[in-house]
Amino acid sequence: MSAPVSLPSLGIVGAGAFGRFMARHLVPHFDLVLADPRADLDAIAGRLGARAGTLDEAAAAGITILAVPVQAIGEVAHALATRLPAGALVLDVGSVKVKPARLLAEALPETVDIVCTHPLFGPQSAADTIAGRKITLCPVRGDRADGVARFCGDVLGLKVIEATPADHDRELAYVQGVTHLIGKTLLTMALDDFDQTTVSYDLLRRAVGYIADDSADLFRAIELENPFAPEARRAFFDAVRQVESVLEDAEHRPGEAAP
Amino acid sequence: MSAPVSLPSLGIVGAGAFGRFMARHLVPHFDLVLADPRADLDAIAGRLGARAGTLDEAAAAGITILAVPVQAIGEVAHALATRLPAGALVLDVGSVKVKPARLLAEALPETVDIVCTHPLFGPQSAADTIAGRKITLCPVRGDRADGVARFCGDVLGLKVIEATPADHDRELAYVQGVTHLIGKTLLTMALDDFDQTTVSYDLLRRAVGYIADDSADLFRAIELENPFAPEARRAFFDAVRQVESVLEDAEHRPGEAAP
Repeated sequence: MSAPVSLPSLGIVGAGAFGRFMARHLVPHFDLVLADPRADLDAIAGRLGARAGTLDEAAAAGITILAVPVQAIGEVAHALATRLPAGALVLDVGSVKVKPARLLAEALPETVDIVCTHPLFGPQSAADTIAGRKITLCPVRGDRADGVARFCGDVLGLKVIEATPADHDRELAYVQGVTHLIGKTLLTMALDDFDQTTVSYDLLRRAVGYIADDSADLFRAIELENPFAPEARRAFFDAVRQVESVLEDAEHRPGEAAP
Repeated sequence: MSAPVSLPSLGIVGAGAFGRFMARHLVPHFDLVLADPRADLDAIAGRLGARAGTLDEAAAAGITILAVPVQAIGEVAHALATRLPAGALVLDVGSVKVKPARLLAEALPETVDIVCTHPLFGPQSAADTIAGRKITLCPVRGDRADGVARFCGDVLGLKVIEATPADHDRELAYVQGVTHLIGKTLLTMALDDFDQTTVSYDLLRRAVGYIADDSADLFRAIELENPFAPEARRAFFDAVRQVESVLEDAEHRPGEAAP
């Protein structure tokens, strides 16, 4: 199936949960080729109205988005390096930005433009609509970030935030770190499906529900590939211990001042 | 200001945040008298369209709701015991139910009916509307719980759940315990107002925002007056430690299997 001649080409490398989610939202705007070594790629691409292609084809599209685990960015960047045409634009969508920005800048030729991105939503949290959701853009090389920002804002309806990779990782270390630590804690508790729930508890469970199906790779990326994650993690665990200690004191001296 | 003769009388003891919130929703349906030792009671009652009254008047109303901290239930129940007419109905709205149910049953004469309640929402989480919010009812003495349930469901539009005080406290130890422990942890972390937030993080902050203004008395009641709170607290802190230990292992052996 060939797309109308007017649509620009775009390649997505990686047909995992996020790659497919992204393809669904980009396919109306691009002649989309999806590359992935998985056996059922034809069926996946077919369902999305995209073409199944090779890494060469995804690289030749002119705009190529890497939707692979952060842990695989370096390897994929090296594989793409010799396949990308001069003037190509490469983007990623990983949950950390310092490391992918460095790896892409190191691996890809100077003639290739790079914009790193982090869509701050996913297939669960934006199942209904992506309009109004946030995306961080980090311009890394070339002057294409403004065009990407306009597409994200005007065409997709996203709220675009521009940041350096370090500023992104510093904020997200807390934002995603705290969310995922709380999520893992609640999953570890294996709580019953309670009937007598408060409004706050229902919101908490919704927040955790959105990340419950996130991959182990994503959790590892958030916790181990973000240079600010250890600091955020320590702040969380220290705060928990402080709350625990205040409560232990209160338990043993029930008449004392409130915690 | 006197109410139309057709409205039944109802007394609320306690004009704190929850007492006022409740008065606002009950005043269309009752000739409402609000009792509280605070100096600005006249002004508060006036703004709500209720009458400021004495404890005697709130007791004489025939239906009396205690909107006092759980820690004060015993004292208020004793003060009411000699003031209530035979056939009166007494309710409370505290966040734990085993202890108030026992204290009310012990303090109030056998001729007084008792229904303990826990509205699972508050001035923050139900600022827009109470319709569809949940309330737990625990029948303690007499046969008035069905009437209370009908009023809550049909007139106020609440979702009514009937439970024993023990069943309530067991569930809520987890539901409120986990929410408030996470809330206290995030408040202790004193997180910045981040710009690059995920959908899950926004929900989490909303959940915490609803309880951020809760009183120290309420936190103490949830954590120290619920017989199941120590068990729930232990489960939470144990789960946090388990997550921390998995992450420490992963940090030191980055090549290993994902947590």
